[in-house]
Amino acid sequence: MTADPSTIAAARKPMRQPLLTVASAPLTEQVEVRNEYGESTTVHIPAERDLTVYVDKRELVTLMTLGAHPEWLTLGYLLNQRLIASIEEVESVTVDWDVNAASVKTRKGIDRIEERTARRVVTTGCGQGSVFGGLMDELDRIELPEGVLRQSQLYAIVNAIRLKESTYKSAGSVHACALFRGTELALFVEDVGRHNAVDTIAGWLALQQEPVRDSGDMLDKVFYTTGRLTSEMVIKSAQMGVAAVISRSGITQMGLQVARRVGLCAVGRATNRHFLCYANPQRLMLDDIPPPAPARA
Amino acid sequence: MTADPSTIAAARKPMRQPLLTVASAPLTEQVEVRNEYGESTTVHIPAERDLTVYVDKRELVTLMTLGAHPEWLTLGYLLNQRLIASIEEVESVTVDWDVNAASVKTRKGIDRIEERTARRVVTTGCGQGSVFGGLMDELDRIELPEGVLRQSQLYAIVNAIRLKESTYKSAGSVHACALFRGTELALFVEDVGRHNAVDTIAGWLALQQEPVRDSGDMLDKVFYTTGRLTSEMVIKSAQMGVAAVISRSGITQMGLQVARRVGLCAVGRATNRHFLCYANPQRLMLDDIPPPAPARA
Repeated sequence: MTADPSTIAAARKPMRQPLLTVASAPLTEQVEVRNEYGESTTVHIPAERDLTVYVDKRELVTLMTLGAHPEWLTLGYLLNQRLIASIEEVESVTVDWDVNAASVKTRKGIDRIEERTARRVVTTGCGQGSVFGGLMDELDRIELPEGVLRQSQLYAIVNAIRLKESTYKSAGSVHACALFRGTELALFVEDVGRHNAVDTIAGWLALQQEPVRDSGDMLDKVFYTTGRLTSEMVIKSAQMGVAAVISRSGITQMGLQVARRVGLCAVGRATNRHFLCYANPQRLMLDDIPPPAPARA
Repeated sequence: MTADPSTIAAARKPMRQPLLTVASAPLTEQVEVRNEYGESTTVHIPAERDLTVYVDKRELVTLMTLGAHPEWLTLGYLLNQRLIASIEEVESVTVDWDVNAASVKTRKGIDRIEERTARRVVTTGCGQGSVFGGLMDELDRIELPEGVLRQSQLYAIVNAIRLKESTYKSAGSVHACALFRGTELALFVEDVGRHNAVDTIAGWLALQQEPVRDSGDMLDKVFYTTGRLTSEMVIKSAQMGVAAVISRSGITQMGLQVARRVGLCAVGRATNRHFLCYANPQRLMLDDIPPPAPARA
């Protein structure tokens, strides 16, 4: 019996999408500053606002965020903290910047939420502020998709980020993360905390209904971050089913350990055509090796 | 009656200093990487290790740290979370890297520790991972010392950091914070998380027995950070009695709000002789205005 195409499409979709507000708030503020000549001038600085997440009317956490995509952030936070296994568990996320609150209504409540939020891990610097314990224990259950990161794909990604950033009128002091599908920029997120940026991407990705397109030829999902590859960034990438991460910055020891353990291709120091592959170089296909640099000749 | 000098000296000292281990561990690891030519080479990456803090045998939190000064970090963490009001409450801090644990023994226990660690605020990116609520409420009780930040002092500090960093064989991917006394570098701390770096400085500062030397002429204590001036960095500086903060990076909206509220002189974008004073410019004495730059003439 041949499967009905409409049935396949339906099976791919989450049965129930959560209802979300689309709350917005100014992302920058113009402020007056004094420079080294004692002159007064104005600059833009990024917003940093508190967003208290309530789950079924119970206060869970307060996130400090730029506030660009608070609903995706909230969903991604719940997913990455493993408080929900799927967005289908969420009926709605209502963000109200007047009271700086994100109210999450679940369909069936979150089992043992008190107990599951009791253990605290304060992760590294730009990492997620607070990860409710046990994430490391779950690592071995993660199966990343097959496929390679092509060098040409890596260069296309680094270039796309370069162009993207040059169009951003920077107020400075924000981190950027991005999710690529193949070589195409799918989502670019900036936040005052990059743990928020990666959580926002996780929330957005969970809402997408497209099937996974990873293949042996080229990885479909690649994560980019301006920040360091700490353990947390690598763990969260793996949790999103992302098998390759690229950073402009470096990697920490534990980030490297996790990348090795889950088989994730970790690339850092990526600028122009230069990069360093820290973990799983067999997943990197060198299809675009640059000509030797003049200084190397 | 004239006070006995020895009594004065004794009064300045904390009556009881905690006992501390001096646990050390390698701060970097040499790893093999592959570059864009497919060549294998080696680089150093920073350590990132978990340190679980136990207070009177109760698990409190797990910090991800470079691990340079785990005992000061633990003390500073307890202070900055307002779990202790003074290091005198601590009898000992025993760090054992074999089990990645910091065991804190208090003299009288920590009152209502369960309740006080229940509220979670996940602060901005490179900010402290988890601040147990209510810090903002305490802001209005902070009285910062009088005194000005001299422009010449600011330049001396920026230059000292420049020299310091050039001597550091960087493994990259660490944040640096420093505490200056006048123009003198008192403590330079690097960590994979800069919230750890500032907590470490707070712990170290609390152990010092010198009287405060802030005067109207020049501020004695100035805090420097390579990272952004988020609300958390400004709050923690104020909690340390530091009235001026300098950053190579910018400031966030809430960082600015807090600096204005507590009367702290916040300076960012400080490189060479350039800087921007974001808050309380009246606390900045322009005693070393540079000659107009050629491009400005």
